[in-house]
Amino acid sequence: MQKLRLFTPGPTMVPENVLLEMARPMEHHRTAWYRDLHKELCELLRYVFQTQATCLTFTGSGTSAMEAAIVGCCPQGHKSLVVVNGKFAERWVQVCAAFAIDHTSLDVEWGHGAGVADISKAMDADPKIDTVVVVHSETSTTALTDVEAIARLTRERGALLIVDGITAVGALPVRMDDWGVDVYVTGSQKALMLPPGLGFAAVNDRAWERIDSGRTPTLYNDLKAYRKSLETFDAPYTPAVSLMRAALCALRSIKDRTLESIWQETTMLARATRAAVVAMGLKVYAADPVDSVTAIMVPSGVDEAALRKTMRSRHGFQIAGGQGKLKGNIIRFSHMGYVDAFDTLGAIAALEITLKGLGFDIEIGIGVTAAQRVFAEAME
Amino acid sequence: MQKLRLFTPGPTMVPENVLLEMARPMEHHRTAWYRDLHKELCELLRYVFQTQATCLTFTGSGTSAMEAAIVGCCPQGHKSLVVVNGKFAERWVQVCAAFAIDHTSLDVEWGHGAGVADISKAMDADPKIDTVVVVHSETSTTALTDVEAIARLTRERGALLIVDGITAVGALPVRMDDWGVDVYVTGSQKALMLPPGLGFAAVNDRAWERIDSGRTPTLYNDLKAYRKSLETFDAPYTPAVSLMRAALCALRSIKDRTLESIWQETTMLARATRAAVVAMGLKVYAADPVDSVTAIMVPSGVDEAALRKTMRSRHGFQIAGGQGKLKGNIIRFSHMGYVDAFDTLGAIAALEITLKGLGFDIEIGIGVTAAQRVFAEAME
Repeated sequence: MQKLRLFTPGPTMVPENVLLEMARPMEHHRTAWYRDLHKELCELLRYVFQTQATCLTFTGSGTSAMEAAIVGCCPQGHKSLVVVNGKFAERWVQVCAAFAIDHTSLDVEWGHGAGVADISKAMDADPKIDTVVVVHSETSTTALTDVEAIARLTRERGALLIVDGITAVGALPVRMDDWGVDVYVTGSQKALMLPPGLGFAAVNDRAWERIDSGRTPTLYNDLKAYRKSLETFDAPYTPAVSLMRAALCALRSIKDRTLESIWQETTMLARATRAAVVAMGLKVYAADPVDSVTAIMVPSGVDEAALRKTMRSRHGFQIAGGQGKLKGNIIRFSHMGYVDAFDTLGAIAALEITLKGLGFDIEIGIGVTAAQRVFAEAME
Repeated sequence: MQKLRLFTPGPTMVPENVLLEMARPMEHHRTAWYRDLHKELCELLRYVFQTQATCLTFTGSGTSAMEAAIVGCCPQGHKSLVVVNGKFAERWVQVCAAFAIDHTSLDVEWGHGAGVADISKAMDADPKIDTVVVVHSETSTTALTDVEAIARLTRERGALLIVDGITAVGALPVRMDDWGVDVYVTGSQKALMLPPGLGFAAVNDRAWERIDSGRTPTLYNDLKAYRKSLETFDAPYTPAVSLMRAALCALRSIKDRTLESIWQETTMLARATRAAVVAMGLKVYAADPVDSVTAIMVPSGVDEAALRKTMRSRHGFQIAGGQGKLKGNIIRFSHMGYVDAFDTLGAIAALEITLKGLGFDIEIGIGVTAAQRVFAEAME
């Protein structure tokens, strides 16, 4: 027997009751039933983003919400600064380039978060910058950015702050309104425990003022069209009804568990995994490690492809490799969504067995024990 | 007991085995499993569009595929003619306007298809036009356009032809390569018997030549990015894995049944419905009625909102009303996807009972009998 356990940082595992929700008969979306569903989902999204801002749902990947955010917030005459510390940050630059949005990149060493001082300096150097884009949790490098500190800066400077929260929202503390973030975006297939196919954006009044001041050169991912349809909890284009239904189910359970308890649990999983890494004589990749995903450096002499293949084919654990320049050098384990301490112990056990099989010198059980101690302490 | 039966022209009913497919555990998309699925899906899409062209799948509504098609095919220096005969045709104009694509509209009376002579005249009047956009089945007015005839014209003129096949592909005869259509787009939630959330586009070499000749000012719905990812049957952004899985399941069953038999069955349902309409003393709205959806004019003295409400709340039949200027004047019944003769007899029976209850003078059974006679003859 082999159970499949997804430890990839998206898609993540989806709870059985959420899966079953998608197997219910199709219903039409131009109905009171759908509007009630959508209304409740908006309220739940406000909870998840910790905001009173407008919460929009896109039928698309997280990238659709990213595109909507920057295209709406950066009409002609405005300039954005994109802090680039990994592959997903690079995607923001690609959107800017595709839509000919005036922008500049601030390169940060991979594995590090975006720094307030660097952003401040870049803004000093180019007074045209009035929009800042950062990735809260850069999934490719597993680096954490201190969004609260950056939001303080952008508020002082009167700039808009757009945050990519794709592997942050629902996993890490996110307090959009308290911090003063103007647009937060996320996707369904990460901490929200849903299949891929929905993007979400929370947009505050400061952002709407900017959006309304210019022309938005797109149709499908036009924030204004989504806002208008929200007046009646409708959708501008046919929504992914099954996924919306699943979203309601998953977000209700997130609210029941409370965000605070989920944030704590995510931190516990990350701490336990990092403790195991150290005990096994391995290294965590990121200098500023985030709690939603852990990247482990592949020890020299071990073939990364063989490691991931064995984890999957022999033990049923699907983990992620590195992307871009990190390909072959790291493996990544998700701590988001429908994954708990005991799944995580299993993943560490499988990693130990796999590494030993590939010739790496390891004492079986040393990582598992280190992780279990963290869990035992946290569960007291 | 009340069964819900969706007769709306999208979303339509989804077969139980397709629904259950979405309840299967999540799997990751950067895997051989996904690439195999995607490869087979591409082959099935080629069958459905009757083409050897490149078939692309978008995570989005049908509108995402529409946007991708026109934005890619009409780079600067090109001009499109959009034939506007209903609300969905108008959406093409909206995409052109949003992306500042040079375009002109050709208004056609609602209920009619796009005519070859009118298009020819419009092209004579404006030699800059090198791209024509028509809607094969205009869902809002239920009008059919003769795509084959228009394709002959655009070939002669050396123009590209983009066809919105959203309520045509999988329901009506579509022979993309035989006819010489350059881009066909469709959505998942119509004749393909899937939930909403996927858009599809088939793009031939003539279209690619045009697309490659210019800049595509978008990221999320960029045809080129989708083509590139197809080289390895991957996806540019995280695909809607559950819906892709469902798509494979639904399209396999379409191929098993054969398109020809499905086209015949759709025609039979439409003919039976139209026969019932006449027998009941009602009128079909469209001058050029399509076989995928039937629009019936609401007789004077009958309140359209009450009619639809009763159909749904008393009898479980969800039908559609009119859109735009047809709001309140028509009701629409879908003949697409997972709907058969006996479902359709039920819908007609419920319509008779509802009309009688609302004071319309009708002999109970007259419409059902007329429809049943069509079925009996077709099933001989």
